[in-house]
Amino acid sequence: MASKLNTESIRAWLDSHKGWKRRSNQIIKSFRFSSFRDSIVFVNRVATLADTHDHHPNIDVQYDNVTITLSTHDAGGITEKDLKLAEQIDFSTSSN
Amino acid sequence: MASKLNTESIRAWLDSHKGWKRRSNQIIKSFRFSSFRDSIVFVNRVATLADTHDHHPNIDVQYDNVTITLSTHDAGGITEKDLKLAEQIDFSTSSN
Repeated sequence: MASKLNTESIRAWLDSHKGWKRRSNQIIKSFRFSSFRDSIVFVNRVATLADTHDHHPNIDVQYDNVTITLSTHDAGGITEKDLKLAEQIDFSTSSN
Repeated sequence: MASKLNTESIRAWLDSHKGWKRRSNQIIKSFRFSSFRDSIVFVNRVATLADTHDHHPNIDVQYDNVTITLSTHDAGGITEKDLKLAEQIDFSTSSN
């Protein structure tokens, strides 16, 4: 099982990953798109990554804005699994 | 433009549409599925209906649970557009 990261490790990661913020036991980022349709395309991309990593973020769609929230419930906090998936999600948007 | 419905009309509609609740200027319903994948299938179905009706709900995915929130911003409240789309969303789940 992935173990909970300490504050220093999370802070270091946040410093080098634009847009992500910590909120207690979660990391969060909002992505803005040019249409609702593009938001949904992104949701499907995130869903595929989530299944690949067997780790499932919360996904909140508000028209052209999608907020991703990551946490590892088993560990009761933020783990490497969250950071890895966050990086993959960022990568999936930058490659378009 | 669709006009804001009064409390009585909304209450009558809620009485005959299981699972929907009013929260101030919005109607809300949570749908439970058997997997994350089924949640995403539902999100895509809702997205298609949203585009068809040119009316876009907020969609919140938490693993096997999807919460749909409907409101008509232009009208500052709940309108026929919200009720119609809500009915279509219900219909799309009942037909599986």
